[in-house]
Amino acid sequence: MNLRIPGPTPCPDQVLKAMGKQMINHRGKEFRSILEQVTQRLKIVYQTTGDVFVLTCSGTGGMEAAIVNTLSPGDGILATTSGAFGNRFAEIGEAFGGRVQRLQFEWGKPVEAEAVKKALEDDPSIKAVLVTHNETSTGVTNDVKAISAVAKKAGKLLLVDAISSLGSIDLQTDNWKCDVVVTCSQKGLMSPPGLAAVSFSEQAWQAQKTAKMPRYNWDFAKARSFQQKGETPWTPAVSAVYAVNAALEMIIQEGLPRIFQRQARISRMVREGVKSLGLELFGDEKCPSDIITAVKATNGLDPKKLLNVMEDKYDVILAGGQQKLDGKIFRIGHLGWVSEKEIENVLASLKKALPEAGFNK
Amino acid sequence: MNLRIPGPTPCPDQVLKAMGKQMINHRGKEFRSILEQVTQRLKIVYQTTGDVFVLTCSGTGGMEAAIVNTLSPGDGILATTSGAFGNRFAEIGEAFGGRVQRLQFEWGKPVEAEAVKKALEDDPSIKAVLVTHNETSTGVTNDVKAISAVAKKAGKLLLVDAISSLGSIDLQTDNWKCDVVVTCSQKGLMSPPGLAAVSFSEQAWQAQKTAKMPRYNWDFAKARSFQQKGETPWTPAVSAVYAVNAALEMIIQEGLPRIFQRQARISRMVREGVKSLGLELFGDEKCPSDIITAVKATNGLDPKKLLNVMEDKYDVILAGGQQKLDGKIFRIGHLGWVSEKEIENVLASLKKALPEAGFNK
Repeated sequence: MNLRIPGPTPCPDQVLKAMGKQMINHRGKEFRSILEQVTQRLKIVYQTTGDVFVLTCSGTGGMEAAIVNTLSPGDGILATTSGAFGNRFAEIGEAFGGRVQRLQFEWGKPVEAEAVKKALEDDPSIKAVLVTHNETSTGVTNDVKAISAVAKKAGKLLLVDAISSLGSIDLQTDNWKCDVVVTCSQKGLMSPPGLAAVSFSEQAWQAQKTAKMPRYNWDFAKARSFQQKGETPWTPAVSAVYAVNAALEMIIQEGLPRIFQRQARISRMVREGVKSLGLELFGDEKCPSDIITAVKATNGLDPKKLLNVMEDKYDVILAGGQQKLDGKIFRIGHLGWVSEKEIENVLASLKKALPEAGFNK
Repeated sequence: MNLRIPGPTPCPDQVLKAMGKQMINHRGKEFRSILEQVTQRLKIVYQTTGDVFVLTCSGTGGMEAAIVNTLSPGDGILATTSGAFGNRFAEIGEAFGGRVQRLQFEWGKPVEAEAVKKALEDDPSIKAVLVTHNETSTGVTNDVKAISAVAKKAGKLLLVDAISSLGSIDLQTDNWKCDVVVTCSQKGLMSPPGLAAVSFSEQAWQAQKTAKMPRYNWDFAKARSFQQKGETPWTPAVSAVYAVNAALEMIIQEGLPRIFQRQARISRMVREGVKSLGLELFGDEKCPSDIITAVKATNGLDPKKLLNVMEDKYDVILAGGQQKLDGKIFRIGHLGWVSEKEIENVLASLKKALPEAGFNK
């Protein structure tokens, strides 16, 4: 099977082997040293010397943790959004009583730093800016560095959803002054789902002191006090910690610059490949995602039929469109454990499957 | 290694093998059928025909989900507690703005249904009763049937923490009218940590409609709408779902009555064994836990030293005391995948280790 959705990604053998290891005491010496190693290695991938916590949850749980640890009901939140995941971040802020202002961009377009700057000038009461590094629903990567520059100049907290991007697309947590960065295990970290990770800056800790959104399971003050003794407050997904540790070893061995180059090379190969088949890209080509490519359903193409044909006849699993893009696009995931070989297979299979799914060009 | 802490428990080979399986699309046909099977099998173990949801989190996340899906800030909550986990449930209620009244019993003693009845009569504004089925910190099992009888007669919601007990000690969700029952993967379900499960009654759904505690990640209205299409709202811990499914197959094959009998037999063996070594039990012997036994540190015994000697010399991992019992007891976990053989090893090792840890009787 060639699993090419935007996570879970296929896992390398070392990672699967780690998943199958027997349980140990999660409050004992051996697990303590594994958890400390995972945390140190995550800091390398995060490009931070600050705090990083491991949580047992999906990426969405990590997003909720980011919000409730830094904000209070009634706080002004500028939620930048140009797709499903930007909207999700905004919805979490709203669910916990934040005064959320949505700065919306057309789906498929990037978030513009200039517009963020203006919105912050228009409403000085805003406390935090939410940004999605890689908008997985549209195949667009946002310029976090530029958005951070205007947000931090205005003294705001910057909360970044890097769930699909971290470890695959350059994100310099410290250099770009990102206060909270969320990711999870089943994307760039090439592991099964079950763990999220969240970085937390000094300014985030300052905010935490007065943040009044209710929290218990996600409380980072508790997470910090347990981390100091090599533990998590609640029983962690031990196997997923084993797995992420094995994956991080591979990632650090390959080296972030080489991974980022590989991802960029593979994403070019995907974009050129689908265009050469007569297809059109959905996302703005000025800011293409290195990890997922969204393709328009043009020329009679039925994307749902395409997904079925690709799976049933060619054993390639692609993703459809989400929410308002349902039935209008299909998406090819190319993140984590991926090489040219799998993409060649996707493109060759697509070439055969397209006519069977109504595409007539 | 003989891992005898109250979770994670050792996992059978079938479960570890399931953990090591490759990823599939969590929104595809194959996973859908696995998730539906897990849900149906969980209902058997829960002894319910109502809803059961699978969440990617620790047991504590499941407890938070139970609270925020049924209650509003200001709601009266009667939290029965006689140990660390009863206190945790109370703290979650408080963190989300509940008006929590603690009905406290001495650690090591059970929660008394009569006292619950009186507390509910004294404060008719109470909306929900929290109860810990098995208080893992003290080795005592509470009489949920009797507590439920008084709580339900008074028309209250009954939220049950069955994290360590479900699948090991009889808990009749429907017969005993438990509205919300929380468990997790690494106890009676013999799987690695990473998944919680929560049952939800009709009365719980009624409460959910007006419950105003903020929620997003834990929202069961979303969970239900995704469950209807065989999915979870957020990416689930796919491997843990594989694993729990394999474990549930074993559990259903053995049969709940036989498992409950095995657990009762093994716990008697533990209690008689430690007493024959001259040790005293901590928990009230009228309501002993079938899954964990707490033992007093008497006659010069240094329980921390004992844990070290047991691990380093005999490869047996036991647990210490929590919070106010730290340094005063040690605990032997005997839940999930356990047979007489492992307990014989624990007792034989204890006999040798006790004198090395200061015990002089």
